[in-house]
Amino acid sequence: MNELSAAFSPTDYRYAVPELRDFCTEAAFVKYKARVEAAVARAFAKRGILREELCDEIVEAASKVTAEEVRAEEQKTRHDIRALVNAIRNRVSDEAKPFVHLSATSYDIVDTANALRYKNAVQKVILPEMLALERVWIELARREKETLQIGRTHGQHAEPLTFGFAISQYVSRWGSRILRLREASENLVGKFSGAVGAYNATSLLFDGDPDAPEEFEREVLSLLGVKPAAVSTQIVPPEPLCDFVHAVVSSFSVLANFCDDIRHLQRTEIAEVRERVAEGQVGSSTMPHKRNPAGLEGVKSLWKRFMPQVVTTHLDQISEHQRDLTNSASQRYTQELLVVFAYCVRRLTGISKRLEVDRARMLANFQISAGDIVAEPLYILLSYYGHPDAHEFVRRKSLQAYEERKSLREVVERADEILPYLRNFTSEQRAKVFDAEKYVGRAAEKAEQVASYWEEVLKGL
Amino acid sequence: MNELSAAFSPTDYRYAVPELRDFCTEAAFVKYKARVEAAVARAFAKRGILREELCDEIVEAASKVTAEEVRAEEQKTRHDIRALVNAIRNRVSDEAKPFVHLSATSYDIVDTANALRYKNAVQKVILPEMLALERVWIELARREKETLQIGRTHGQHAEPLTFGFAISQYVSRWGSRILRLREASENLVGKFSGAVGAYNATSLLFDGDPDAPEEFEREVLSLLGVKPAAVSTQIVPPEPLCDFVHAVVSSFSVLANFCDDIRHLQRTEIAEVRERVAEGQVGSSTMPHKRNPAGLEGVKSLWKRFMPQVVTTHLDQISEHQRDLTNSASQRYTQELLVVFAYCVRRLTGISKRLEVDRARMLANFQISAGDIVAEPLYILLSYYGHPDAHEFVRRKSLQAYEERKSLREVVERADEILPYLRNFTSEQRAKVFDAEKYVGRAAEKAEQVASYWEEVLKGL
Amino acid sequence: MNELSAAFSPTDYRYAVPELRDFCTEAAFVKYKARVEAAVARAFAKRGILREELCDEIVEAASKVTAEEVRAEEQKTRHDIRALVNAIRNRVSDEAKPFVHLSATSYDIVDTANALRYKNAVQKVILPEMLALERVWIELARREKETLQIGRTHGQHAEPLTFGFAISQYVSRWGSRILRLREASENLVGKFSGAVGAYNATSLLFDGDPDAPEEFEREVLSLLGVKPAAVSTQIVPPEPLCDFVHAVVSSFSVLANFCDDIRHLQRTEIAEVRERVAEGQVGSSTMPHKRNPAGLEGVKSLWKRFMPQVVTTHLDQISEHQRDLTNSASQRYTQELLVVFAYCVRRLTGISKRLEVDRARMLANFQISAGDIVAEPLYILLSYYGHPDAHEFVRRKSLQAYEERKSLREVVERADEILPYLRNFTSEQRAKVFDAEKYVGRAAEKAEQVASYWEEVLKGL
Amino acid sequence: MNELSAAFSPTDYRYAVPELRDFCTEAAFVKYKARVEAAVARAFAKRGILREELCDEIVEAASKVTAEEVRAEEQKTRHDIRALVNAIRNRVSDEAKPFVHLSATSYDIVDTANALRYKNAVQKVILPEMLALERVWIELARREKETLQIGRTHGQHAEPLTFGFAISQYVSRWGSRILRLREASENLVGKFSGAVGAYNATSLLFDGDPDAPEEFEREVLSLLGVKPAAVSTQIVPPEPLCDFVHAVVSSFSVLANFCDDIRHLQRTEIAEVRERVAEGQVGSSTMPHKRNPAGLEGVKSLWKRFMPQVVTTHLDQISEHQRDLTNSASQRYTQELLVVFAYCVRRLTGISKRLEVDRARMLANFQISAGDIVAEPLYILLSYYGHPDAHEFVRRKSLQAYEERKSLREVVERADEILPYLRNFTSEQRAKVFDAEKYVGRAAEKAEQVASYWEEVLKGL
Repeated sequence: MNELSAAFSPTDYRYAVPELRDFCTEAAFVKYKARVEAAVARAFAKRGILREELCDEIVEAASKVTAEEVRAEEQKTRHDIRALVNAIRNRVSDEAKPFVHLSATSYDIVDTANALRYKNAVQKVILPEMLALERVWIELARREKETLQIGRTHGQHAEPLTFGFAISQYVSRWGSRILRLREASENLVGKFSGAVGAYNATSLLFDGDPDAPEEFEREVLSLLGVKPAAVSTQIVPPEPLCDFVHAVVSSFSVLANFCDDIRHLQRTEIAEVRERVAEGQVGSSTMPHKRNPAGLEGVKSLWKRFMPQVVTTHLDQISEHQRDLTNSASQRYTQELLVVFAYCVRRLTGISKRLEVDRARMLANFQISAGDIVAEPLYILLSYYGHPDAHEFVRRKSLQAYEERKSLREVVERADEILPYLRNFTSEQRAKVFDAEKYVGRAAEKAEQVASYWEEVLKGL
Repeated sequence: MNELSAAFSPTDYRYAVPELRDFCTEAAFVKYKARVEAAVARAFAKRGILREELCDEIVEAASKVTAEEVRAEEQKTRHDIRALVNAIRNRVSDEAKPFVHLSATSYDIVDTANALRYKNAVQKVILPEMLALERVWIELARREKETLQIGRTHGQHAEPLTFGFAISQYVSRWGSRILRLREASENLVGKFSGAVGAYNATSLLFDGDPDAPEEFEREVLSLLGVKPAAVSTQIVPPEPLCDFVHAVVSSFSVLANFCDDIRHLQRTEIAEVRERVAEGQVGSSTMPHKRNPAGLEGVKSLWKRFMPQVVTTHLDQISEHQRDLTNSASQRYTQELLVVFAYCVRRLTGISKRLEVDRARMLANFQISAGDIVAEPLYILLSYYGHPDAHEFVRRKSLQAYEERKSLREVVERADEILPYLRNFTSEQRAKVFDAEKYVGRAAEKAEQVASYWEEVLKGL
Repeated sequence: MNELSAAFSPTDYRYAVPELRDFCTEAAFVKYKARVEAAVARAFAKRGILREELCDEIVEAASKVTAEEVRAEEQKTRHDIRALVNAIRNRVSDEAKPFVHLSATSYDIVDTANALRYKNAVQKVILPEMLALERVWIELARREKETLQIGRTHGQHAEPLTFGFAISQYVSRWGSRILRLREASENLVGKFSGAVGAYNATSLLFDGDPDAPEEFEREVLSLLGVKPAAVSTQIVPPEPLCDFVHAVVSSFSVLANFCDDIRHLQRTEIAEVRERVAEGQVGSSTMPHKRNPAGLEGVKSLWKRFMPQVVTTHLDQISEHQRDLTNSASQRYTQELLVVFAYCVRRLTGISKRLEVDRARMLANFQISAGDIVAEPLYILLSYYGHPDAHEFVRRKSLQAYEERKSLREVVERADEILPYLRNFTSEQRAKVFDAEKYVGRAAEKAEQVASYWEEVLKGL
Repeated sequence: MNELSAAFSPTDYRYAVPELRDFCTEAAFVKYKARVEAAVARAFAKRGILREELCDEIVEAASKVTAEEVRAEEQKTRHDIRALVNAIRNRVSDEAKPFVHLSATSYDIVDTANALRYKNAVQKVILPEMLALERVWIELARREKETLQIGRTHGQHAEPLTFGFAISQYVSRWGSRILRLREASENLVGKFSGAVGAYNATSLLFDGDPDAPEEFEREVLSLLGVKPAAVSTQIVPPEPLCDFVHAVVSSFSVLANFCDDIRHLQRTEIAEVRERVAEGQVGSSTMPHKRNPAGLEGVKSLWKRFMPQVVTTHLDQISEHQRDLTNSASQRYTQELLVVFAYCVRRLTGISKRLEVDRARMLANFQISAGDIVAEPLYILLSYYGHPDAHEFVRRKSLQAYEERKSLREVVERADEILPYLRNFTSEQRAKVFDAEKYVGRAAEKAEQVASYWEEVLKGL
């Protein structure tokens, strides 16, 4: 789309997700608002207030109205919903006209349309993308569940694990976020309670039937598949949207963490994983041999840009009295957050698929510290078999090893003072203490367990 | 507490909640960590690995160890958990010593202790405070459910409602947040999976029983009443804490909104509510007659200070590989957020109790716009009875009224062109259109409905 | 631009500033990067390394290359700067080709281009817009410098001032921000120091002349009018951009404050100012008589969306070693911040021009508290003339007045106990104490002083 | 301070800077407010309005009043400034009493006291701490200016530089921030313009002398050494404080970047630097051999907690009309930001002093890529000597090298097609191309230049 190099937002030029155009653009917003107007007409028809053929006219008109027509009207009215109403009215008979938007306030339409389109965007595009990434990670966790890797804390070699186990953390965290985002999208609410939320207009219309206003609201929203707010002002209560944005952003952070991890594993000195590169791709404009983790860095960078939007959503929890409009422009940008998030999910799916594990290098890195890993298992078993101060013993031996430039294993294997305890070790314990590769705990099994669990859970989605 | 005027944080000097000292201080943190160490000992005893009397020694020592002892040890070791372990060891026999902290990594203790103390702080102090505020609001909503008030959007008079209905929004939003925070506190997780989360140490210890490590973790945590993480690294997955902070902050924002609303209703020109003041209280250092809504402003101000902490919690979702320590200092401040939030809840409970409604003034303000409120109901009924362009008709009449400095009602009551439609109005509709006080929709019933609903729900907590 | 209803970002559809297309779009970014490439060629020519006619070829090609050509190349290379270089090379002779981008690293081009285009955007579009708003405010401050208004603190009536004085605060704050933003835009820096900032490439090229690399960098940047960084890595130090974003956002907040103030002055019960509305404008979709301060609310709302971007700029201060790329995507959005800010400045200029002051209403509101304003001047003069506890005296009288439903003036005028002090008051003091309209301090003079000061300062810009 | 384990804020228990107690505590705040009250009295005396001996009484009382006295009064008045005034009045004769706080509004005192104490905190504690760190870095940059290190971009080996050059970036960035913070602290403003900023009270007092109110304000502030605001409401304009917080936070981010860099250089596989550890220090509770960069992680973590406070400072730029109080509680926390920042500066000074460079390891890491560094210099010289497509040539050779598992140098040294160009290289160019250690640009000279520059600049502070 050439026009877009003239756009001010990089989202359109660089980070677009075309499938989201049906939900996350001004045109889509207009389409969804029109759909709500159509539902209002259908609910009137259902109650026998609006003749079926007039209802059909409105439903038809609502399905055809375009963003451009609305914009042209807005130039005149300077009010976006009145512009939409006029654009629909322009397409129906005089008899149908009065029933367009009848008894609605703008935000009956806007809030309901937003709830519906965000929910649809999540369920039709974003969740499938998230599931695709989850499946790639499940496969990776399972494939590498036995691949020995050194665990790292503080950037320092710590205890053994497997690469599949490391990935299983992401499988689990991401799986939980998928469920959370799905739930948050389903909890988005709409309303049809009028200008201040008290059903003033519909109470007037359905004069004499006190339950009718809330029934009518439920009817309109159920036609669309959106839950009604328990109570509302001019707008829906802000918390469901706030929870929704939280669900998106907290999911986004899981991606950011993955990016950092994989990026660091690609450091020249570590080099345990790499991305297969495309033919002809340029790594660096001046250093052609480099393979930069630019995709991972790009996702992290977009997170840096969009994560602080959580502040906006909390600011938008505040609206004076029955509402001020200071949440309007800001909430228009919610759609962009969804696009950028979906873009990042998709991008990471690609990168994760192309991820190559250098098992030899992983093992080589592991070997660097293999001789020192004895520290923890030794101290634990010494304690277990009654050594009164095993931690301090091992700490001193570590320093000695460091000074003598030996591995800790070399130093402790010859330490007479612990011989009495060593004799009590089972042979398997002895193996795990002195052979670091065996001291890998339940890494492989746990990786498999997590993979299977989420495979099962997500089957149901 | 005089010492605290020498403290750097205003929380201690001005915004303290003494009941939270048992959960949200360094001393409490030490106490909870010791409690986790005790649970570890008890779980060993339960498995028959640790003799009951040695276990009792450790449990006893853990219950007595103080923050000061730990601090003194930390001066030497420069490691807070090793300091705690030494402090407990100092209080037990040589035989028991090796079993203190056996097979644990620091964050098995820290993360579990935090999950437990935050959960307890919520359930023992914060939820009761939240419920107290909810009850005051329920009472207020019910008491004022029939009190006519003008609804305001954009700070402009809009349609009628009742003050109790306005308050019912807060009852509903706050009730939902209470449930959310309770759920988030229960979803906090602990762990006992060792230095990189792979159960390396416990697999060694429970050699030959592959299920024992996870069983043991479940045992330790169930003794404490904390859920185990599905899978963990050196630390628990960060999302449950992130969801928890989100629950607190999004609740806090509801308070901030309430503050703004009540504050604006106290503006000199509006003056619909006021707070009863205490004897001897000074409103202003130089304008003694003023009654400033300082409490409401204080709560809003604290929200401005602590709301941005959500950014921190998202930053803390990122930890490199099996963890880095950059979430440690930042998460120590979670306790302070809880204190300030609880302070604000309590303060608003007091203010809400002291809130006086000036019904006469509310009605007088309502009357300012009573003559214009006809606009909406008239346009809706005209449309309903077939007027092809009722909105535009009313809009023009509004401008005419504005120019003639009349109320809209005066202008439209004499408008011949709508007579044919007016004849179709039912008498009740006519009353609602031309008597603004009747055009109040379902405000009173809805206020009652919301109040009853939450009264019922919260009974169960 | 119809296409833009298919854009994901509302900035393009609703908040565009067409004049910024030359600086704040992808197309403009390409144009500026090409301009930097041209400057490099010209600097080579100046040093006699590149023949003039080859230089001309490159300069010419750089001026013609389009965003679309670059994008097509980027599909192949997946590297935006290599794509640009190829696009320029495609337009020059084989002899000129090697000199395109010679010795440059991508960010020599990117950072320099950004510094230049942001600076130009500020100086050519944004500063003029800011000055236009400042002039409207200066005029308003001067026009209303004698217009009596009640000062308000905590939303409560406080002491007298004039509306022009209130506006002069904005004149002064905004003037200071204009200077700050101008300074920050001039302090943006570029670089030409190569892939890790050590001038590796240019040291090789200008072999034997140790000063040449830095001279060459200065030459390139001075051709463009951008300051060089004192020292750089692959990228410029992040602080100048961070200061720049701070200058924009802290200016934006001044607008947000103005919006709140003017909005509250339009509350139905206050109604001291209003905006002239356009013919045919619709205030509300369902309440046609309403005049909503939607423009002011819109600006505040955009501020809520873009203010948190300061967090991003601080995150972008961190880049690992000689740089990681996690500031790339995030910084691409800096251009959008400038657009939205400029949009808001322009919108407020329009609103400020249309602002009508209802002086009669302002005075009427003032009169509400005229009888209580005596409190401060009386307490001060009583103190001054020796009353030992004037503040407490006035405080008690205030409460008495409140209970007797009288004005404070009525109560104190008859208070015998202060007669001895009153006799010492000068006649002018007596007038100021008992006639609230006279107790207006230096409001008018100060408003004029501020207006004149900034008029003078800004003349020089 | 044992009491502090009962404090809610970790700042006091873990991150205190005792020297800041004189500026950044409630007690210090009281002391500074009293100092402003004393200055008011002195200014009255100077104008002959207050007898010298009465002035002396007030000055004496103000110097002695304690936070505890004020707190006791505040229990009664519930107003902190009135409490302070009463506490001072309690210590002076009846004749002096009326002159305490005469004509002042609370925020004349509060804002001025804050400006003064923040400025003093910066100049007396924080700047010296910052300078101490800068000196350590200057020394480090100079000491290591010739120490060869591989430059890293995207975590990948890039071009050569020296470690001193890498450190010189921090010298330069930190130096700039020192100047910015100093400037921002000097630009903090105070006020003495009364309850709404219009000098109502002082105009009354200095009746007949129109210039006196502003003169008096200047007098009070000059006695304290604080600049007056150009114009004010009840409070000073918020921008100087906002700029100040920006200066602190943007400085803090430089530290956070340093932490990340040094932390990554300590990764087990890189290990180019390390911190000397203290005797007896425990690296890990369960892995005694580990040397964790906990100090660096701690500083980064505190940055994560306090950086988002910039959002608060922008929220505090908004205050309704002549002020609301929603900036009061939030701004009380500014003092804590200063403490934590100073703590981090000091901690990094210690770490930087203890930093050991493993030059052998640095060189060994460099050697990993020495054979590939030929890429950039070769492509540049080939271009320079007329090769029409050098970048593409080198890119292809890089891939070939990668596939043949050779270094790029091995591959290109035998490439006949470039022989004609190679012949044109000077011998020094040839050396730089094929000997990576020589391709280090101006790293050493630049490191020295930066070190010398800042040494000189900072001498003047």
